[in-house]
Amino acid sequence: MALNEFSLIEKYFSSLGKAPGVALGVGDDAAVLDISEGEQLVVTVDTLVAGVHFPHNALPSDIAHRCLRVNLSDIAAMGAQPRWFTLALTLPDPNEDWLRQFSQALSDDAELFNCALVGGDTTAGPLSITIQLFGTVPKGKALTRSGAQAGDAVYVTGSLGEASAALSLFGIGDQIVIDHEVEREILLQRFYRPEPRLADGLKLRDLASAALDISDGLLADLGHIAKASHLGAEIQLEQLPVKSWLKALAEPERIKEWVLSGGDDYELCFTVPQENCSAVDALIEQGELSAVCIGQMTNEPGVRCFSFEGNDMQRSLVNIEQSGYQHF
Amino acid sequence: MALNEFSLIEKYFSSLGKAPGVALGVGDDAAVLDISEGEQLVVTVDTLVAGVHFPHNALPSDIAHRCLRVNLSDIAAMGAQPRWFTLALTLPDPNEDWLRQFSQALSDDAELFNCALVGGDTTAGPLSITIQLFGTVPKGKALTRSGAQAGDAVYVTGSLGEASAALSLFGIGDQIVIDHEVEREILLQRFYRPEPRLADGLKLRDLASAALDISDGLLADLGHIAKASHLGAEIQLEQLPVKSWLKALAEPERIKEWVLSGGDDYELCFTVPQENCSAVDALIEQGELSAVCIGQMTNEPGVRCFSFEGNDMQRSLVNIEQSGYQHF
Repeated sequence: MALNEFSLIEKYFSSLGKAPGVALGVGDDAAVLDISEGEQLVVTVDTLVAGVHFPHNALPSDIAHRCLRVNLSDIAAMGAQPRWFTLALTLPDPNEDWLRQFSQALSDDAELFNCALVGGDTTAGPLSITIQLFGTVPKGKALTRSGAQAGDAVYVTGSLGEASAALSLFGIGDQIVIDHEVEREILLQRFYRPEPRLADGLKLRDLASAALDISDGLLADLGHIAKASHLGAEIQLEQLPVKSWLKALAEPERIKEWVLSGGDDYELCFTVPQENCSAVDALIEQGELSAVCIGQMTNEPGVRCFSFEGNDMQRSLVNIEQSGYQHF
Repeated sequence: MALNEFSLIEKYFSSLGKAPGVALGVGDDAAVLDISEGEQLVVTVDTLVAGVHFPHNALPSDIAHRCLRVNLSDIAAMGAQPRWFTLALTLPDPNEDWLRQFSQALSDDAELFNCALVGGDTTAGPLSITIQLFGTVPKGKALTRSGAQAGDAVYVTGSLGEASAALSLFGIGDQIVIDHEVEREILLQRFYRPEPRLADGLKLRDLASAALDISDGLLADLGHIAKASHLGAEIQLEQLPVKSWLKALAEPERIKEWVLSGGDDYELCFTVPQENCSAVDALIEQGELSAVCIGQMTNEPGVRCFSFEGNDMQRSLVNIEQSGYQHF
């Protein structure tokens, strides 16, 4: 969820969510609903609009992959197992070629991630896709945003900034020059086929205290965990996972912006109580989890960034201008 | 669901729905999912697009009512109890006045129909609203389209044609002249605030063999039941429930078109085995159910209309040109 979206939904719609069976309503990556004694249903919904979330000339297969995967990422961030999804498709015209390619890609990903399309609605209108995904989780085991404690370590999976860099390939923001076809392709893949961290989410169920997926940018999203947990957070810039080849693509300030404020990476950001850190680090060492510790939760509100810049013996506070993705 | 929508979804997406826990997938009013020993989850999704499903100048409150109610109608047609919903809202700009009115109306209906908003996504783009609604039903009790048998009686609830007549108030199709403000208001209400037949759906759970809500027009929707049940159907035009004041608004041919092919009434069409007809008729006589028998299921494929027109001693087959609402 983007910042404005979050506040709009909070402001106008949060009062509508009081009812029996709602374990967790509006405001997290997904809702958690009581459906049986032992299991809970995890529900998330995301809309992608042509010209807003992907370029008008995007391939139908790329759109299908991205649509399903951004929803799968929310399910991953809850530590849940994906099960079923519905598709609401709005199309300017019933182009069969488009539909064939879109449905084939969706089918491939549905099989890969083991979830089934159970319902849908197609309507005429400007191209827009809404996917609603259902997962299940053992009762009480869902990873929410609000469980962090002061002193918990903050981790992120994978690497950051690549999806944000990809936007410049679409003519959004300052242009960058990419000589290598391979790097160009990797950036586009990172944007269109984000890897939902489903296996990681399952491993973290009993280890993490809070989690979400990074869709608005690391600072904004870690801010969501901090706010929901009534805490703050501090991170160490030198610890952030950034591919070295990405660093070569632009000026350091630009890279920092991609990594801290760029959305769309769909990596997980999660917090770990100190007593569980050795177990998490063991998973990382064994190659079972691709993640790195970047900071910790604090009692001081807000998210603060530290750096050793200019003085490698003492870290200093860095002012970051947030420029993360905003809807509207 | 409209005709084209149905065939598009069938053609391209039905193969994606094979998975554990899917009791009923793409192609009915809603999907049915196994969630616990005794209960099933019923899931439906509908998108409404400005300029396609409602006029661009529609009031935010009218849009909210219609969005939630068309989904509630699908849940009613399954004989299920509404529980939760999610909202995916695409807005050209974050107009707070619009949001206040929309959310207030949504809140009123959520309370009225006892269901809670549990999640959402707001994005920038052309105005479009996707609501996904979840209901629950005792295992095996969902009313599907495929359960009818030859000889079953066909019933419809309420009255038909009013929502279709309302479209002419928006300048769609031939214009009609309505002198009375009251009638004008009733037509608009029928369009914007269709009454989801939830209580009727619950009563019919143990009595009806098949059911759906009339969104594409009676002939098309009864055709869906016939096709899904591998049967045909015949109806008697004189039996169709049409308000007398509606009949005065236009020529008989026009009225027939509204009643037979006009969508958007969201009444239930259901089939009843002969042994249950006396129980259904008793509910009708006691005022517990507003419905009327209009025909029966047959072994001959297709939906055929009969009339006593011109000869009140012998009924004759009537050719109907279908002009029902089509997406795209």
